[in-house]
Amino acid sequence: MIHTLLFLFSLLTFSAHAAVQDFCVADLKGPQTPAGYTCKPAGTVTVDDFVSTGLRFAGNTSNIIKAAVTPEFAEQFPGVNGLGISIARLDLAVGGVVPMHTHPGGNELLLVTQGFVQAGFVSSANEVYVKTLEKGDIMVFPQGLLHFQVNAGGVTAVAFASFSSATPGLQILDFALFANDLPSKLVEATTFLDDATVKALKAVLGGTG
Amino acid sequence: MIHTLLFLFSLLTFSAHAAVQDFCVADLKGPQTPAGYTCKPAGTVTVDDFVSTGLRFAGNTSNIIKAAVTPEFAEQFPGVNGLGISIARLDLAVGGVVPMHTHPGGNELLLVTQGFVQAGFVSSANEVYVKTLEKGDIMVFPQGLLHFQVNAGGVTAVAFASFSSATPGLQILDFALFANDLPSKLVEATTFLDDATVKALKAVLGGTG
Amino acid sequence: MIHTLLFLFSLLTFSAHAAVQDFCVADLKGPQTPAGYTCKPAGTVTVDDFVSTGLRFAGNTSNIIKAAVTPEFAEQFPGVNGLGISIARLDLAVGGVVPMHTHPGGNELLLVTQGFVQAGFVSSANEVYVKTLEKGDIMVFPQGLLHFQVNAGGVTAVAFASFSSATPGLQILDFALFANDLPSKLVEATTFLDDATVKALKAVLGGTG
Amino acid sequence: MIHTLLFLFSLLTFSAHAAVQDFCVADLKGPQTPAGYTCKPAGTVTVDDFVSTGLRFAGNTSNIIKAAVTPEFAEQFPGVNGLGISIARLDLAVGGVVPMHTHPGGNELLLVTQGFVQAGFVSSANEVYVKTLEKGDIMVFPQGLLHFQVNAGGVTAVAFASFSSATPGLQILDFALFANDLPSKLVEATTFLDDATVKALKAVLGGTG
Amino acid sequence: MIHTLLFLFSLLTFSAHAAVQDFCVADLKGPQTPAGYTCKPAGTVTVDDFVSTGLRFAGNTSNIIKAAVTPEFAEQFPGVNGLGISIARLDLAVGGVVPMHTHPGGNELLLVTQGFVQAGFVSSANEVYVKTLEKGDIMVFPQGLLHFQVNAGGVTAVAFASFSSATPGLQILDFALFANDLPSKLVEATTFLDDATVKALKAVLGGTG
Amino acid sequence: MIHTLLFLFSLLTFSAHAAVQDFCVADLKGPQTPAGYTCKPAGTVTVDDFVSTGLRFAGNTSNIIKAAVTPEFAEQFPGVNGLGISIARLDLAVGGVVPMHTHPGGNELLLVTQGFVQAGFVSSANEVYVKTLEKGDIMVFPQGLLHFQVNAGGVTAVAFASFSSATPGLQILDFALFANDLPSKLVEATTFLDDATVKALKAVLGGTG
Repeated sequence: MIHTLLFLFSLLTFSAHAAVQDFCVADLKGPQTPAGYTCKPAGTVTVDDFVSTGLRFAGNTSNIIKAAVTPEFAEQFPGVNGLGISIARLDLAVGGVVPMHTHPGGNELLLVTQGFVQAGFVSSANEVYVKTLEKGDIMVFPQGLLHFQVNAGGVTAVAFASFSSATPGLQILDFALFANDLPSKLVEATTFLDDATVKALKAVLGGTG
Repeated sequence: MIHTLLFLFSLLTFSAHAAVQDFCVADLKGPQTPAGYTCKPAGTVTVDDFVSTGLRFAGNTSNIIKAAVTPEFAEQFPGVNGLGISIARLDLAVGGVVPMHTHPGGNELLLVTQGFVQAGFVSSANEVYVKTLEKGDIMVFPQGLLHFQVNAGGVTAVAFASFSSATPGLQILDFALFANDLPSKLVEATTFLDDATVKALKAVLGGTG
Repeated sequence: MIHTLLFLFSLLTFSAHAAVQDFCVADLKGPQTPAGYTCKPAGTVTVDDFVSTGLRFAGNTSNIIKAAVTPEFAEQFPGVNGLGISIARLDLAVGGVVPMHTHPGGNELLLVTQGFVQAGFVSSANEVYVKTLEKGDIMVFPQGLLHFQVNAGGVTAVAFASFSSATPGLQILDFALFANDLPSKLVEATTFLDDATVKALKAVLGGTG
Repeated sequence: MIHTLLFLFSLLTFSAHAAVQDFCVADLKGPQTPAGYTCKPAGTVTVDDFVSTGLRFAGNTSNIIKAAVTPEFAEQFPGVNGLGISIARLDLAVGGVVPMHTHPGGNELLLVTQGFVQAGFVSSANEVYVKTLEKGDIMVFPQGLLHFQVNAGGVTAVAFASFSSATPGLQILDFALFANDLPSKLVEATTFLDDATVKALKAVLGGTG
Repeated sequence: MIHTLLFLFSLLTFSAHAAVQDFCVADLKGPQTPAGYTCKPAGTVTVDDFVSTGLRFAGNTSNIIKAAVTPEFAEQFPGVNGLGISIARLDLAVGGVVPMHTHPGGNELLLVTQGFVQAGFVSSANEVYVKTLEKGDIMVFPQGLLHFQVNAGGVTAVAFASFSSATPGLQILDFALFANDLPSKLVEATTFLDDATVKALKAVLGGTG
Repeated sequence: MIHTLLFLFSLLTFSAHAAVQDFCVADLKGPQTPAGYTCKPAGTVTVDDFVSTGLRFAGNTSNIIKAAVTPEFAEQFPGVNGLGISIARLDLAVGGVVPMHTHPGGNELLLVTQGFVQAGFVSSANEVYVKTLEKGDIMVFPQGLLHFQVNAGGVTAVAFASFSSATPGLQILDFALFANDLPSKLVEATTFLDDATVKALKAVLGGTG
């Protein structure tokens, strides 16, 4: 039934040695590089480095936006380091909103697994692309463009966003404008919002200046 | 309240012109390139190019493997063309199996959304990484490595596999060996399977030679 | 003095044939691809494809933002197609502002060649990086992050922004929010701006909905 | 005869400083990264880092497959680290076989330098591409696809396989299925091979489970 | 012996459709793109697209440099298009020289298969790396750096150069300086060669101006 | 005026954690990698890492080429590490010349900001592209090709060269040939320059051998 009896040792040796770049599980304590974290030694890697249970349960939506975003990027899920992919879970209670934001470093593919989500993005050409998605629907958001997700039904919605990067980043517009020490004068000059609006939002979001 | 009255025309013009490379919705009738399909003219793109309802419903698992794989790669979902991301839906009836396979062109991140899935891959170093996943769990499979998914519970399982490529490809081992005209002699010489096994599987899977 | 008399023909032929991928001057009439425009036939390329005089003169700053941005991206300067680099000229009259914006597809390196420019960006970690630059100073803005430039002196300022892409794109925040048909309700829900502010800015910037 | 007398010091300094990224000879003792090994300090690099004599002599083909594969990947030949290229020598005694395998991380270009080699690969579309090559012939195998090489003559064959990666990896099908602890039940379920075949091959190849 | 009877049609269909990006055999008549040529339709591809016999025989070295370079880049070997790899054959008669040159678009890995070759390159840091190679030896030359190969023995030498690009390009120094219409004055000003040397080499190599 | 009161903590935490790969300011003391330097810890980064005043003033042109090149590559300007962009200042006194050179690792976009510059490059196909640029003009030079810049007016010229890499490298032809220990015999054999020319230039430029 079988043609062989013993395999050559050189091939065995070869295979073991050449395997290193199959993956590069992040060593979160090592230095970072432009291509991601340095790798854990291959000998210490186990299946649990490639698995995460961190998205099993809903995030806490008892907050003002009635929503939660739970990322599994390289920092939370070291197994995706260097693999150009990652994921995040979105929980949107009734009335929940993932506010206008961008991912500076990756394209996003959203999959709705429960409820209804109205999602949209604006292109550089200033075209608006908005759609209401239901369970099983997918939508793609090109890298770096402003986009949002809103619960569009009377039930809690759940969605999973996959990214074309292990570290897509996240910049939430209101945070960038109102939740840091960017001086109000500069916010106003560069957004055309008035002083009262800027100061009020800074007060709410904890910004200074 | 507002600082401005009229925006400059040059910026408007600029923005409209510079937007082209935000995305490149595939023109499935145009020529392909090493980087993907050529793009649909920007003026003809609508939100429906970025949305698909193709994964709303379960694939048909009334087959021998009791499983279905429904891809949304660039060919099925032109909006992901050039964006380095895509997705597929896996339906696994009780006893269902996605047989040993590879994706030559992309890393995979699996998300289980229903039931239980035992999944695993083998590295170049010949290490085996197997885990049983439940709803909400994720697992990553590095590019080009043999891997599989098996229903691990008494209920239908559903999972979604995201990929780090719009065209990850799929090579199912048994198809590659037994469902084409690769001569049995070559299959036997290069796999160490015996002639009877090869011929029997070729008969089942429609292979010749 | 010289060792050779005649060079071999095969090398000459070789050199001519192998040269094509030195550059890929954009054929603006051809289809686009995820990697850029298709190339003009090599035989029709001249030095003028690699040169532009389009930034010789100041853009028109007689507008509300007292600023002008003149891009030389692949669409305006086909010679950079596929080369991962491009440039834009910024003219800032006294009081001029390049409003809060992002480049979804490229990193930016700003060089001030006249006057004083206060420039800044906000990171995903919500850190603010602001500096006033003078003639000869450079500053780098990572891809996809909100940033701005403001004239910081009593004289006209000029700067040149280089990009790590031939098509970096440009998304101006106020345009994305207020100069299209994104419904006011969605803008409000996803930015926490009030209805009056949104409607007023939409009126000014020509937005509807 | 000569226009210059002394070159400027700044250029000399510049040249020396800017050279670092010409190459990145692997520091095999340093941490790895998704882009390869960290680099040896430039000052310790010599010409011997860029040269290897490891392929001068035939590998040992006194084994069951009558073949040997000798890699010069980044681990064996640190000079290719980060350069997107590597090579391996194939020795095939009469009757020799390089069994069905994939390279998860790189495309392969095979050059036959002695004898006759029958080589082939199977595409994702399940098309079979097989050819018998003689001395001087080349064949390309796209990344991640199952392929093989068989001695097709009555003399020892030698070939060199170049790869589009410094770490292309190697996954030998029979090793992945039968030479580790992947449980027989899973092998059978995902390959449709019967229990006797799986157990027999596991016994031969040292697999357990 | 076999667990299955019939495979599901959806998988078959899927596999056929998803295969396109396994490879992209160049359509030499189609437009080029920054990522390579457009692809031949998949249905017209045969094994002969992946095989070339063009390097079977020595190039003609009856010329002044007593050497021949025979490339198999994408233009000569369409099967490598988009795969990031290519090859060239070097024939060096006794006294033969491949003159100082660069490959602007790819790293090179040289394999000597006959005779002796003295090869070397100069780094940006102006370090010289020279070695005499014999049959079976390999040497790597980083992208864009000046390098050369010289027959170092009393017999004809043969070598094969693999590249990390399907279109590495080739710029031969003497051709670039003396075999075109670059004005002598500019050559002299930018190389510090004297007028007599420049004019003499231009005369030999067919340059004008 | 404002819809919200308090933002959710999870989003704040998320944003802070996910930001790391926005940038990777070089840790010049850490190891290098094929993708650039390792990163400074995020907590130690300040705006001054993204700004440089190193190009404010003219380089010293009191030298034989009457020119100076002042780079701001990753080594001089750590903020560009990993961002695929960098810049250099060129000062050309009357009669000044940036001699024939290549950048092995990046495309160049030249911007003239003062005076007149005659610039040119030679393609792999041996075509010459030369143009005289004035203030505000731009010209692009594809990676790895020989090119030069010459002051073309009666006044000091200034230009800024941007690159599509943080480490484009610089190989000055005369340095590579005549300012190191590459043996004269090899220079002569591979360039067809005569012994007297080579030895004279080696004497001037400090070369040996």
